[in-house]
Amino acid sequence: MKIAVLGTGMVGQSLADRLACLGHDVVVGTRDPEATRARREPDGMGNPPLSTWLGSHPSVELTTLPEAAGRAEVIVNATNGAGSLDALSRAGAGHLAGKVVIDISNPLDFTAGFPPTLLVKDSDSLGEQIQRAFPDAKVVKTLNTLNAHLMVDPLSLGQDSSVFVSGDDPAAKAVVVDLLESFGHTDVIDLGDITTARGTEMFLPLWLRLMGALRTPAFNVRVVR
Amino acid sequence: MKIAVLGTGMVGQSLADRLACLGHDVVVGTRDPEATRARREPDGMGNPPLSTWLGSHPSVELTTLPEAAGRAEVIVNATNGAGSLDALSRAGAGHLAGKVVIDISNPLDFTAGFPPTLLVKDSDSLGEQIQRAFPDAKVVKTLNTLNAHLMVDPLSLGQDSSVFVSGDDPAAKAVVVDLLESFGHTDVIDLGDITTARGTEMFLPLWLRLMGALRTPAFNVRVVR
Repeated sequence: MKIAVLGTGMVGQSLADRLACLGHDVVVGTRDPEATRARREPDGMGNPPLSTWLGSHPSVELTTLPEAAGRAEVIVNATNGAGSLDALSRAGAGHLAGKVVIDISNPLDFTAGFPPTLLVKDSDSLGEQIQRAFPDAKVVKTLNTLNAHLMVDPLSLGQDSSVFVSGDDPAAKAVVVDLLESFGHTDVIDLGDITTARGTEMFLPLWLRLMGALRTPAFNVRVVR
Repeated sequence: MKIAVLGTGMVGQSLADRLACLGHDVVVGTRDPEATRARREPDGMGNPPLSTWLGSHPSVELTTLPEAAGRAEVIVNATNGAGSLDALSRAGAGHLAGKVVIDISNPLDFTAGFPPTLLVKDSDSLGEQIQRAFPDAKVVKTLNTLNAHLMVDPLSLGQDSSVFVSGDDPAAKAVVVDLLESFGHTDVIDLGDITTARGTEMFLPLWLRLMGALRTPAFNVRVVR
Protein backbone atom coordinates (compact mmCIF):
# COMPACT_ATOMS: atom_id res chain seq x y z
CA MET A 1 0.00 0.00 0.00
CA LYS A 2 0.98 3.63 -0.43
CA ILE A 3 1.30 4.91 3.12
CA ALA A 4 2.13 8.42 4.34
CA VAL A 5 3.62 8.75 7.80
CA LEU A 6 3.13 12.29 9.06
CA GLY A 7 5.69 13.18 11.74
CA THR A 8 9.43 12.56 11.96
CA GLY A 9 9.88 11.74 15.67
CA MET A 10 10.56 8.32 17.16
CA VAL A 11 7.00 7.15 16.47
CA GLY A 12 7.08 8.30 12.86
CA GLN A 13 10.49 6.74 12.29
CA SER A 14 9.44 3.41 13.85
CA LEU A 15 6.29 3.21 11.77
CA ALA A 16 7.97 4.26 8.53
CA ASP A 17 10.81 1.80 9.09
CA ARG A 18 8.52 -1.14 9.79
CA LEU A 19 6.07 -0.34 6.98
CA ALA A 20 8.92 0.01 4.46
CA CYS A 21 10.43 -3.32 5.64
CA LEU A 22 7.05 -4.95 5.10
CA GLY A 23 7.13 -3.81 1.48
CA HIS A 24 4.82 -0.80 1.60
CA ASP A 25 5.50 2.32 -0.46
CA VAL A 26 6.25 4.77 2.36
CA VAL A 27 6.54 8.54 2.24
CA VAL A 28 7.21 10.65 5.32
CA GLY A 29 5.60 14.07 5.60
CA THR A 30 6.83 17.01 7.66
CA ARG A 31 6.16 20.78 7.77
CA ASP A 32 9.51 21.85 6.38
CA PRO A 33 11.43 19.00 4.72
CA GLU A 34 14.47 21.17 3.91
CA ALA A 35 14.89 22.32 7.51
CA THR A 36 14.39 18.74 8.76
CA ARG A 37 16.94 17.40 6.28
CA ALA A 38 19.46 20.11 7.18
CA ARG A 39 19.38 19.37 10.91
CA ARG A 40 22.62 17.67 12.00
CA GLU A 41 22.20 17.61 15.80
CA PRO A 42 20.42 14.98 17.92
CA ASP A 43 16.96 16.00 19.15
CA GLY A 44 16.14 16.93 22.75
CA MET A 45 15.86 13.23 23.66
CA GLY A 46 19.30 12.42 22.24
CA ASN A 47 17.94 10.68 19.14
CA PRO A 48 20.03 11.09 15.96
CA PRO A 49 18.79 13.66 13.40
CA LEU A 50 16.39 12.49 10.73
CA SER A 51 19.07 12.94 8.05
CA THR A 52 20.92 9.97 9.60
CA TRP A 53 17.74 7.88 9.52
CA LEU A 54 16.99 8.86 5.91
CA GLY A 55 20.50 7.75 4.92
CA SER A 56 19.73 4.22 6.07
CA HIS A 57 16.23 4.22 4.51
CA PRO A 58 16.88 5.12 0.85
CA SER A 59 13.45 3.89 -0.25
CA VAL A 60 11.63 6.35 2.04
CA GLU A 61 11.11 9.85 0.71
CA LEU A 62 10.75 12.92 2.92
CA THR A 63 8.35 15.54 1.61
CA THR A 64 5.76 18.10 2.69
CA LEU A 65 2.62 17.20 4.62
CA PRO A 66 0.22 17.84 1.71
CA GLU A 67 2.39 16.03 -0.83
CA ALA A 68 2.79 13.00 1.45
CA ALA A 69 -0.92 12.83 2.28
CA GLY A 70 -1.94 13.44 -1.33
CA ARG A 71 0.06 10.50 -2.63
CA ALA A 72 -1.05 7.96 0.00
CA GLU A 73 -3.96 5.57 0.37
CA VAL A 74 -3.44 5.29 4.14
CA ILE A 75 -2.20 8.13 6.35
CA VAL A 76 -0.55 7.67 9.73
CA ASN A 77 -0.77 10.62 12.14
CA ALA A 78 2.46 10.29 14.09
CA THR A 79 2.74 14.00 14.85
CA ASN A 80 2.91 15.48 18.35
CA GLY A 81 -0.62 15.38 19.79
CA ALA A 82 -0.57 19.07 20.71
CA GLY A 83 0.01 19.92 17.04
CA SER A 84 -1.90 17.14 15.30
CA LEU A 85 -4.96 19.13 14.26
CA ASP A 86 -2.74 21.83 12.77
CA ALA A 87 -0.50 19.31 11.00
CA LEU A 88 -3.49 17.50 9.51
CA SER A 89 -4.97 20.84 8.37
CA ARG A 90 -1.67 21.59 6.62
CA ALA A 91 -1.83 18.14 5.00
CA GLY A 92 -5.18 19.24 3.65
CA ALA A 93 -8.71 18.00 4.29
CA GLY A 94 -9.03 17.07 0.62
CA HIS A 95 -6.00 14.81 0.89
CA LEU A 96 -7.51 12.98 3.87
CA ALA A 97 -11.01 12.58 2.45
CA GLY A 98 -12.10 9.00 1.91
CA LYS A 99 -8.82 7.65 3.31
CA VAL A 100 -7.92 5.63 6.38
CA VAL A 101 -6.22 7.96 8.88
CA ILE A 102 -4.45 5.99 11.61
CA ASP A 103 -4.19 8.27 14.63
CA ILE A 104 -1.38 7.29 16.98
CA SER A 105 -1.04 10.63 18.76
CA ASN A 106 -1.70 11.42 22.40
CA PRO A 107 -2.89 14.86 23.53
CA LEU A 108 -0.12 15.32 26.09
CA ASP A 109 0.40 18.68 27.77
CA PHE A 110 3.95 19.12 29.06
CA THR A 111 3.54 22.80 29.96
CA ALA A 112 3.47 21.98 33.69
CA GLY A 113 6.39 19.52 33.44
CA PHE A 114 6.48 15.78 33.89
CA PRO A 115 4.32 13.75 34.07
CA PRO A 116 2.23 15.53 31.45
CA THR A 117 -1.52 15.98 31.74
CA LEU A 118 -4.02 15.61 28.89
CA LEU A 119 -5.16 18.53 26.70
CA VAL A 120 -8.51 16.81 26.11
CA LYS A 121 -10.13 14.00 28.11
CA ASP A 122 -13.13 12.27 29.59
CA SER A 123 -15.96 13.86 27.58
CA ASP A 124 -13.92 14.16 24.37
CA SER A 125 -10.66 12.88 22.87
CA LEU A 126 -8.10 13.90 20.28
CA GLY A 127 -9.25 11.01 18.10
CA GLU A 128 -12.77 12.46 18.08
CA GLN A 129 -11.50 15.99 17.48
CA ILE A 130 -9.63 14.76 14.41
CA GLN A 131 -12.68 12.85 13.15
CA ARG A 132 -14.87 15.94 13.64
CA ALA A 133 -12.34 18.23 11.94
CA PHE A 134 -12.05 15.86 8.94
CA PRO A 135 -15.47 14.22 8.67
CA ASP A 136 -14.64 12.63 5.30
CA ALA A 137 -11.58 10.83 6.69
CA LYS A 138 -11.90 7.38 8.23
CA VAL A 139 -10.09 7.89 11.52
CA VAL A 140 -8.91 4.84 13.46
CA LYS A 141 -7.22 5.41 16.80
CA THR A 142 -4.67 2.76 17.72
CA LEU A 143 -1.14 2.09 19.03
CA ASN A 144 -1.20 5.13 21.35
CA THR A 145 -0.94 2.83 24.40
CA LEU A 146 2.57 1.56 23.53
CA ASN A 147 6.06 2.92 23.11
CA ALA A 148 7.32 3.41 19.56
CA HIS A 149 9.42 0.26 19.43
CA LEU A 150 6.66 -2.04 20.72
CA MET A 151 4.08 -0.49 18.40
CA VAL A 152 5.77 -2.17 15.45
CA ASP A 153 7.44 -5.13 17.18
CA PRO A 154 5.21 -6.25 20.07
CA LEU A 155 6.58 -9.80 20.01
CA SER A 156 9.95 -8.48 21.19
CA LEU A 157 8.38 -8.66 24.67
CA GLY A 158 8.49 -12.45 24.35
CA GLN A 159 4.83 -12.71 25.37
CA ASP A 160 1.52 -11.83 23.75
CA SER A 161 0.03 -8.47 24.68
CA SER A 162 -2.98 -6.42 23.61
CA VAL A 163 -3.60 -3.40 21.42
CA PHE A 164 -6.82 -1.49 20.80
CA VAL A 165 -8.66 0.06 17.84
CA SER A 166 -11.37 2.72 17.95
CA GLY A 167 -13.18 4.08 14.92
CA ASP A 168 -16.52 4.61 13.22
CA ASP A 169 -15.76 2.79 9.93
CA PRO A 170 -15.62 -1.02 10.12
CA ALA A 171 -13.80 -1.37 6.78
CA ALA A 172 -11.14 1.13 7.86
CA LYS A 173 -10.69 -0.76 11.14
CA ALA A 174 -10.25 -3.99 9.17
CA VAL A 175 -7.42 -2.39 7.15
CA VAL A 176 -5.77 -1.26 10.39
CA VAL A 177 -6.18 -4.65 12.07
CA ASP A 178 -4.41 -6.27 9.08
CA LEU A 179 -1.53 -3.82 9.43
CA LEU A 180 -1.33 -4.40 13.19
CA GLU A 181 -1.24 -8.16 12.70
CA SER A 182 1.52 -7.73 10.11
CA PHE A 183 3.52 -5.96 12.86
CA GLY A 184 3.07 -9.00 15.13
CA HIS A 185 0.08 -7.92 17.20
CA THR A 186 -1.79 -11.07 18.22
CA ASP A 187 -4.61 -9.58 20.34
CA VAL A 188 -6.27 -6.58 18.67
CA ILE A 189 -9.35 -5.51 20.63
CA ASP A 190 -11.99 -3.46 18.80
CA LEU A 191 -13.31 -1.11 21.48
CA GLY A 192 -16.03 0.36 19.27
CA ASP A 193 -16.57 3.77 17.71
CA ILE A 194 -14.17 6.71 17.82
CA THR A 195 -15.52 7.89 21.20
CA THR A 196 -13.79 4.88 22.76
CA ALA A 197 -10.50 6.68 22.03
CA ARG A 198 -11.25 8.45 25.34
CA GLY A 199 -10.39 5.18 27.03
CA THR A 200 -7.03 4.62 25.38
CA GLU A 201 -5.96 8.26 25.60
CA MET A 202 -6.82 8.31 29.32
CA PHE A 203 -4.67 5.21 29.78
CA LEU A 204 -1.60 7.40 29.27
CA PRO A 205 -1.46 8.64 32.89
CA LEU A 206 -1.22 5.01 34.07
CA TRP A 207 1.29 4.19 31.32
CA LEU A 208 3.47 7.10 32.47
CA ARG A 209 3.40 5.95 36.14
CA LEU A 210 4.16 2.39 35.07
CA MET A 211 7.15 3.62 33.08
CA GLY A 212 8.34 5.38 36.24
CA ALA A 213 7.78 2.36 38.48
CA LEU A 214 9.26 -0.18 36.06
CA ARG A 215 12.06 2.19 34.92
CA THR A 216 11.52 1.20 31.31
CA PRO A 217 9.05 1.96 28.50
CA ALA A 218 9.43 -1.65 27.31
CA PHE A 219 6.14 -3.00 28.63
CA ASN A 220 2.59 -3.44 27.44
CA VAL A 221 -0.68 -4.65 28.90
CA ARG A 222 -2.31 -7.91 28.07
CA VAL A 223 -6.05 -8.03 28.65
CA VAL A 224 -6.51 -11.33 30.49
CA ARG A 225 -9.99 -12.80 30.16
CA MET B 1 -6.36 -8.28 61.83
CA LYS B 2 -9.34 -6.15 62.83
CA ILE B 3 -10.59 -4.74 59.55
CA ALA B 4 -13.47 -2.35 58.90
CA VAL B 5 -15.06 -2.41 55.47
CA LEU B 6 -16.94 0.83 54.86
CA GLY B 7 -19.66 0.38 52.25
CA THR B 8 -22.23 -2.35 51.70
CA GLY B 9 -22.29 -2.62 47.88
CA MET B 10 -20.83 -5.42 45.80
CA VAL B 11 -17.27 -4.23 46.47
CA GLY B 12 -17.80 -4.02 50.22
CA GLN B 13 -19.48 -7.43 50.32
CA SER B 14 -16.72 -9.07 48.26
CA LEU B 15 -13.99 -7.64 50.45
CA ALA B 16 -15.76 -8.42 53.72
CA ASP B 17 -16.51 -11.97 52.59
CA ARG B 18 -12.95 -12.71 51.52
CA LEU B 19 -11.35 -11.06 54.55
CA ALA B 20 -13.64 -13.00 56.92
CA CYS B 21 -12.85 -16.26 55.11
CA LEU B 22 -9.16 -15.54 55.54
CA GLY B 23 -9.71 -15.33 59.30
CA HIS B 24 -9.74 -11.58 59.85
CA ASP B 25 -12.06 -9.95 62.38
CA VAL B 26 -14.33 -8.03 59.98
CA VAL B 27 -16.88 -5.34 60.73
CA VAL B 28 -18.89 -3.59 58.02
CA GLY B 29 -19.75 0.07 58.44
CA THR B 30 -22.66 1.93 56.86
CA ARG B 31 -24.44 5.26 57.44
CA ASP B 32 -27.65 3.78 58.81
CA PRO B 33 -27.29 0.12 59.83
CA GLU B 34 -30.96 -0.21 60.81
CA ALA B 35 -32.23 1.02 57.44
CA THR B 36 -29.73 -1.21 55.62
CA ARG B 37 -30.74 -4.24 57.68
CA ALA B 38 -34.45 -3.55 57.11
CA ARG B 39 -34.14 -3.43 53.30
CA ARG B 40 -35.69 -6.54 51.75
CA GLU B 41 -35.56 -5.65 48.03
CA PRO B 42 -32.67 -6.22 45.59
CA ASP B 43 -30.64 -3.08 44.78
CA GLY B 44 -30.79 -1.23 41.46
CA MET B 45 -28.33 -3.73 39.94
CA GLY B 46 -30.46 -6.72 40.99
CA ASN B 47 -28.15 -7.76 43.81
CA PRO B 48 -29.84 -9.29 46.87
CA PRO B 49 -30.32 -7.02 49.90
CA LEU B 50 -27.55 -6.90 52.49
CA SER B 51 -29.77 -8.67 55.02
CA THR B 52 -29.49 -11.82 52.89
CA TRP B 53 -25.71 -11.48 52.80
CA LEU B 54 -25.52 -10.90 56.56
CA GLY B 55 -27.53 -14.07 57.12
CA SER B 56 -24.80 -16.11 55.44
CA HIS B 57 -21.96 -14.24 57.18
CA PRO B 58 -22.81 -14.56 60.88
CA SER B 59 -19.29 -13.58 61.97
CA VAL B 60 -19.51 -10.20 60.25
CA GLU B 61 -21.16 -7.40 62.20
CA LEU B 62 -22.91 -4.44 60.57
CA THR B 63 -22.56 -1.19 62.44
CA THR B 64 -22.17 2.57 61.98
CA LEU B 65 -19.28 4.14 60.11
CA PRO B 66 -17.61 5.63 63.24
CA GLU B 67 -18.04 2.45 65.27
CA ALA B 68 -16.65 0.25 62.50
CA ALA B 69 -13.68 2.56 61.87
CA GLY B 70 -13.02 3.04 65.57
CA ARG B 71 -12.70 -0.68 66.23
CA ALA B 72 -10.43 -1.50 63.29
CA GLU B 73 -6.70 -1.48 62.66
CA VAL B 74 -7.15 -1.37 58.89
CA ILE B 75 -10.02 0.43 57.14
CA VAL B 76 -11.24 -0.35 53.63
CA ASN B 77 -13.02 2.46 51.79
CA ALA B 78 -15.48 0.57 49.61
CA THR B 79 -18.03 3.38 49.49
CA ASN B 80 -19.30 5.00 46.31
CA GLY B 81 -16.56 7.35 45.07
CA ALA B 82 -18.92 10.31 44.81
CA GLY B 83 -19.67 9.98 48.53
CA SER B 84 -16.36 8.71 49.88
CA LEU B 85 -15.10 11.97 51.41
CA ASP B 86 -18.42 12.41 53.21
CA ALA B 87 -18.52 8.79 54.37
CA LEU B 88 -14.97 8.98 55.73
CA SER B 89 -15.79 12.25 57.49
CA ARG B 90 -18.72 10.51 59.15
CA ALA B 91 -16.39 7.67 60.16
CA GLY B 92 -14.35 10.35 61.90
CA ALA B 93 -10.85 11.67 61.24
CA GLY B 94 -9.81 10.52 64.71
CA HIS B 95 -10.81 6.95 63.88
CA LEU B 96 -8.69 6.98 60.72
CA ALA B 97 -5.61 8.61 62.25
CA GLY B 98 -2.52 6.43 62.23
CA LYS B 99 -4.34 3.61 60.43
CA VAL B 100 -3.99 2.04 57.02
CA VAL B 101 -6.91 3.22 54.85
CA ILE B 102 -7.26 1.08 51.73
CA ASP B 103 -9.05 3.19 49.15
CA ILE B 104 -10.81 1.11 46.49
CA SER B 105 -13.23 3.77 45.30
CA ASN B 106 -13.44 5.43 41.90
CA PRO B 107 -14.70 9.01 41.46
CA LEU B 108 -17.30 8.09 38.85
CA ASP B 109 -19.88 10.63 37.75
CA PHE B 110 -23.02 9.01 36.34
CA THR B 111 -25.01 12.25 36.12
CA ALA B 112 -24.68 12.32 32.30
CA GLY B 113 -25.43 8.59 31.97
CA PHE B 114 -23.25 5.71 30.88
CA PRO B 115 -20.31 5.53 30.46
CA PRO B 116 -19.61 7.73 33.49
CA THR B 117 -16.96 10.44 33.50
CA LEU B 118 -14.59 11.19 36.39
CA LEU B 119 -15.35 13.75 39.11
CA VAL B 120 -11.63 14.39 39.59
CA LYS B 121 -8.75 13.58 37.23
CA ASP B 122 -5.42 14.35 35.64
CA SER B 123 -4.05 16.97 38.08
CA ASP B 124 -5.64 15.38 41.17
CA SER B 125 -7.33 12.15 42.22
CA LEU B 126 -9.80 10.90 44.79
CA GLY B 127 -6.98 9.01 46.50
CA GLU B 128 -5.11 12.29 46.98
CA GLN B 129 -8.25 14.12 48.10
CA ILE B 130 -8.77 11.50 50.81
CA GLN B 131 -5.12 11.67 51.89
CA ARG B 132 -5.31 15.49 52.07
CA ALA B 133 -8.62 15.41 53.99
CA PHE B 134 -7.22 12.88 56.49
CA PRO B 135 -3.50 13.68 56.69
CA ASP B 136 -2.95 11.36 59.68
CA ALA B 137 -4.34 8.34 57.82
CA LYS B 138 -2.06 6.15 55.73
CA VAL B 139 -3.99 6.00 52.47
CA VAL B 140 -3.17 3.26 49.98
CA LYS B 141 -5.04 3.23 46.69
CA THR B 142 -5.48 -0.22 45.18
CA LEU B 143 -7.93 -2.67 43.56
CA ASN B 144 -9.89 0.11 41.81
CA THR B 145 -8.87 -1.30 38.40
CA LEU B 146 -10.79 -4.58 38.82
CA ASN B 147 -14.33 -5.78 39.27
CA ALA B 148 -15.41 -6.79 42.76
CA HIS B 149 -15.12 -10.53 42.24
CA LEU B 150 -11.61 -10.37 40.72
CA MET B 151 -10.40 -7.99 43.42
CA VAL B 152 -10.51 -10.83 45.94
CA ASP B 153 -10.10 -13.84 43.62
CA PRO B 154 -7.85 -12.82 40.73
CA LEU B 155 -6.74 -16.40 40.08
CA SER B 156 -10.27 -17.26 38.96
CA LEU B 157 -9.15 -15.83 35.60
CA GLY B 158 -6.88 -18.85 35.25
CA GLN B 159 -3.91 -16.63 34.41
CA ASP B 160 -1.75 -14.20 36.34
CA SER B 161 -2.70 -10.54 36.10
CA SER B 162 -1.53 -7.30 37.68
CA VAL B 163 -2.75 -4.97 40.40
CA PHE B 164 -1.36 -1.61 41.54
CA VAL B 165 -0.68 0.18 44.83
CA SER B 166 -0.21 3.92 45.34
CA GLY B 167 0.58 5.55 48.67
CA ASP B 168 2.97 7.71 50.62
CA ASP B 169 3.69 5.29 53.49
CA PRO B 170 5.91 2.30 52.63
CA ALA B 171 4.91 0.34 55.75
CA ALA B 172 1.22 0.81 54.97
CA LYS B 173 1.81 -0.35 51.41
CA ALA B 174 3.58 -3.44 52.74
CA VAL B 175 0.50 -4.30 54.85
CA VAL B 176 -1.69 -3.90 51.77
CA VAL B 177 0.61 -5.96 49.55
CA ASP B 178 0.42 -8.80 52.10
CA LEU B 179 -3.38 -8.65 52.01
CA LEU B 180 -3.42 -8.56 48.20
CA GLU B 181 -1.14 -11.59 48.03
CA SER B 182 -3.42 -13.40 50.48
CA PHE B 183 -6.25 -12.81 47.96
CA GLY B 184 -4.18 -14.47 45.22
CA HIS B 185 -2.60 -11.44 43.56
CA THR B 186 0.73 -12.52 42.11
CA ASP B 187 1.89 -9.29 40.47
CA VAL B 188 1.46 -6.25 42.73
CA ILE B 189 3.11 -3.19 41.16
CA ASP B 190 4.03 -0.31 43.47
CA LEU B 191 3.45 2.78 41.32
CA GLY B 192 4.82 5.19 43.92
CA ASP B 193 3.25 7.89 46.08
CA ILE B 194 -0.45 8.67 46.33
CA THR B 195 -0.34 11.00 43.30
CA THR B 196 0.07 7.90 41.14
CA ALA B 197 -3.58 7.13 41.96
CA ARG B 198 -4.29 9.53 39.08
CA GLY B 199 -3.05 6.78 36.79
CA THR B 200 -5.24 3.99 38.11
CA GLU B 201 -8.34 6.17 38.47
CA MET B 202 -7.92 7.38 34.87
CA PHE B 203 -7.74 3.75 33.75
CA LEU B 204 -11.47 3.46 34.44
CA PRO B 205 -12.56 4.95 31.09
CA LEU B 206 -10.58 2.23 29.29
CA TRP B 207 -11.88 -0.43 31.70
CA LEU B 208 -15.45 0.66 30.95
CA ARG B 209 -14.91 0.47 27.15
CA LEU B 210 -13.26 -2.92 27.54
CA MET B 211 -16.25 -4.17 29.52
CA GLY B 212 -18.45 -3.00 26.65
CA ALA B 213 -16.30 -4.59 23.95
CA LEU B 214 -15.74 -7.88 25.81
CA ARG B 215 -19.33 -7.97 27.18
CA THR B 216 -18.07 -9.04 30.59
CA PRO B 217 -16.45 -7.42 33.62
CA ALA B 218 -14.43 -10.62 34.14
CA PHE B 219 -11.11 -9.41 32.80
CA ASN B 220 -7.96 -7.76 34.10
CA VAL B 221 -4.75 -6.42 32.66
CA ARG B 222 -1.40 -8.07 33.00
CA VAL B 223 1.57 -5.77 32.66
CA VAL B 224 3.84 -7.71 30.30
CA ARG B 225 7.51 -6.73 30.57
